[in-house]
Amino acid sequence: MDAKTAELAKEISAIVGAGNLRQGDEVRLTDPGEYAANTGADLMVSPADTAEVAAVVRACAAAGVSIVAHGGRTGLVGGGATTAAQVIVSTQRLNRIEALDPVAGTAIVGAGVTIGTVQDAAREHGLGPGIDLPSRGTATVGGMIATNAGGLEAHRHGVMRHRILGLEAVLPDGRIMSDLSQVLKVSAGYDLKHLFIGAEGTLGIVTRAVLRLAPLQPQGPVMMLSLPSGEAMLETMRIARQTGRLRASEAMWKNFFDFGTKDKNWSAPDYDMDAPLHFILEFEGGEGAEDAAGAVFEAVIEQFPDATGVLAQSLSQAEAIWTLREDTRIVDRQNPGAPSFDVSMPISELPAYAERIRLALEALDLVPLIFGHVGDGNLHVMIPRAAADIPPELMAQIEQILMAGLVARGGSFSAEHGVGTKRRHLLDAEADPVKLALMRQIKAALDPHNLMNPGKVVDPA
Amino acid sequence: MDAKTAELAKEISAIVGAGNLRQGDEVRLTDPGEYAANTGADLMVSPADTAEVAAVVRACAAAGVSIVAHGGRTGLVGGGATTAAQVIVSTQRLNRIEALDPVAGTAIVGAGVTIGTVQDAAREHGLGPGIDLPSRGTATVGGMIATNAGGLEAHRHGVMRHRILGLEAVLPDGRIMSDLSQVLKVSAGYDLKHLFIGAEGTLGIVTRAVLRLAPLQPQGPVMMLSLPSGEAMLETMRIARQTGRLRASEAMWKNFFDFGTKDKNWSAPDYDMDAPLHFILEFEGGEGAEDAAGAVFEAVIEQFPDATGVLAQSLSQAEAIWTLREDTRIVDRQNPGAPSFDVSMPISELPAYAERIRLALEALDLVPLIFGHVGDGNLHVMIPRAAADIPPELMAQIEQILMAGLVARGGSFSAEHGVGTKRRHLLDAEADPVKLALMRQIKAALDPHNLMNPGKVVDPA
Repeated sequence: MDAKTAELAKEISAIVGAGNLRQGDEVRLTDPGEYAANTGADLMVSPADTAEVAAVVRACAAAGVSIVAHGGRTGLVGGGATTAAQVIVSTQRLNRIEALDPVAGTAIVGAGVTIGTVQDAAREHGLGPGIDLPSRGTATVGGMIATNAGGLEAHRHGVMRHRILGLEAVLPDGRIMSDLSQVLKVSAGYDLKHLFIGAEGTLGIVTRAVLRLAPLQPQGPVMMLSLPSGEAMLETMRIARQTGRLRASEAMWKNFFDFGTKDKNWSAPDYDMDAPLHFILEFEGGEGAEDAAGAVFEAVIEQFPDATGVLAQSLSQAEAIWTLREDTRIVDRQNPGAPSFDVSMPISELPAYAERIRLALEALDLVPLIFGHVGDGNLHVMIPRAAADIPPELMAQIEQILMAGLVARGGSFSAEHGVGTKRRHLLDAEADPVKLALMRQIKAALDPHNLMNPGKVVDPA
Repeated sequence: MDAKTAELAKEISAIVGAGNLRQGDEVRLTDPGEYAANTGADLMVSPADTAEVAAVVRACAAAGVSIVAHGGRTGLVGGGATTAAQVIVSTQRLNRIEALDPVAGTAIVGAGVTIGTVQDAAREHGLGPGIDLPSRGTATVGGMIATNAGGLEAHRHGVMRHRILGLEAVLPDGRIMSDLSQVLKVSAGYDLKHLFIGAEGTLGIVTRAVLRLAPLQPQGPVMMLSLPSGEAMLETMRIARQTGRLRASEAMWKNFFDFGTKDKNWSAPDYDMDAPLHFILEFEGGEGAEDAAGAVFEAVIEQFPDATGVLAQSLSQAEAIWTLREDTRIVDRQNPGAPSFDVSMPISELPAYAERIRLALEALDLVPLIFGHVGDGNLHVMIPRAAADIPPELMAQIEQILMAGLVARGGSFSAEHGVGTKRRHLLDAEADPVKLALMRQIKAALDPHNLMNPGKVVDPA
């Protein structure tokens, strides 16, 4: 640690107390989460409240040292990566649910609260945050704001951006912007909270947020259908959506399905394990739910005689089905650094896109694992091959295949994971040039000295 | 018209054709809509497409002449007011529904399309834009984006901001930002469309938008309940929301109810016309809808024996009830320029707020008409007295009463009407100072010469 960092450490220690500042190897010994380079910094501070965050930011700004905010470290694209001369500001102590108003349907929470904690607290009032994702026990509200997280319920309740009524953020110069609106309807000038949502900590550090809660419906029927084609999937989606009760619609193309079923040793009587596509549907519970789900099941089987299906008869059967979809860690464990993508497009484009990339990637001797949130037009694609075994030219080919025509069709190269470091070149290549120039202007206006998470998303103009 | 304006008129005429440029009195002869000062400008141009808008903006920028975009002119706070030396850019010819994808549930439309036109086109596919307001036949998509319009369905589908997937805008320097995303899930850098939504044309002119459509449920039961108190209203709201079918929840406090019922000569057998509060509930139709609504009705009457109610037995009865709520023009006709407010707050705060302002305003010999969207915590307050009869000191007192504690409780001084010219002093007084300073920084970064709708919302820093 150089002298400048040591001096800054003293200042920060005076702000937060020595026990809340880790230095050097103490930082390296913390769990880096989903991205190894997260713990590269020599200093990691855990402020107790917004005022402490602001004081730390002012100290760093005065020293010209840049800052990277960390939540649950579940990000997949390197938005939290740090180098030695940086300071990590962890939100782990901003972990209080400060208020929950069941009548208004709002919760005011610290940025370090996990979404799972919000779910638990809201559930007691028959409410939920309207957003859910596999890393619910670790992902923090602040981190989900930073990446505009999506997850499993977006087609019903929107993405993180739509669940946030207000927020508080510490700006790069240490000022505190307090916009803790608790209402849905605001038409009172520029709605600046949306600048911070999805900015991955490059414009400021979100310290508190007001979440909008939604009435929680009981969990209902879960089924998995094997389908003969992508068109059958769209038609199944249409039928399922008509119930008005569809909660989740997760598709697994064959390669991915095989990966999971072999690992978990899953099968079911009369279920067609060889179908090209497998579709999990979950419905809301309550009166009439079983009938509605049963009617969907029958309508699909009738229209597509090749389809088969399994309707979970117990919670554990439902969980076994969900695990096939949610447990993707094995891919990465078997293939460290395996390329992984997160794209979105209009639902109507999904079947043709999946087929096109599958054929093109298989022609390169790759076995793409394709799965995702059909209701949101959001696909995840993993290539089960270790990063070390993929030369740069091949990686460029893979990206070219995945990106071709995506933005032109109204889709996105990053649906819910963010830009971070891993997707910067795609942002540069795929974004509208005027929009990109504007992003850089905004970054320059708010963070002229590039102190907030530099190197992520965009550089100042 | 001065020589500079005449010269600019020639240039603009060359861009759009003489038939699409009005000058001087021709502008004054157009319908100013809801704000008399809308038609103060000497030039009003109607470009045919985005390229023409950009060319007009470049011509105005080169001449140093400022621009005010106009949609349907239904704005209530003077966001479209113009002076002689300005140019009105009307979106009236950007009036095409360019695409509608019923599978993906999206529509790409010109900014000048009315929301009613979108509703009609989507209805053919069993879809709707998820937003509705009384001025549906006139209000344009572009204008609703500019003010982040709310309306009657916000508690279900969000406000305009939540219905927009992508947009295209002409910037103050004539560049075109094209962000016509068609997907809900995007985490690809700063989501700049949100800067333009609610900016009232001060950062650029929105020319096209991608709207998210929602499955349309058939219209269902409409009822009106007379209730003994605000607490009864909250409890009724809770009961109604549990059905999962609540479409609209519009309250009318006694003064406003009296105003409408006397004008329309409305009454119903056994309905308590003297109750302090009247509550319209509309539910989605479909199987079980009548039963669900009936159960709400009975539960409320049981819990509040003083409550009475009327369940519409026909479409015309339902319309008669809705007219009581929606037809507010008479207030303004009888009292030209009557003060009107549009505030929001957590639902739980509504009863106490309404009671407090009623008493305080009545103490000033004023008769506040209070009504609004309960599900959104959004109240409208009109004072039936001509502007000419309200001295500035009284107006200041009225505003003080209405604003007291509103922002501190997480509410807003402008829920869905915007800031325009009428609410600028409230924005200055009520907004977080850091947020306000940031707004000005953003305005300065995007529009340094203050060419886009100057004098509205904020001035550049």
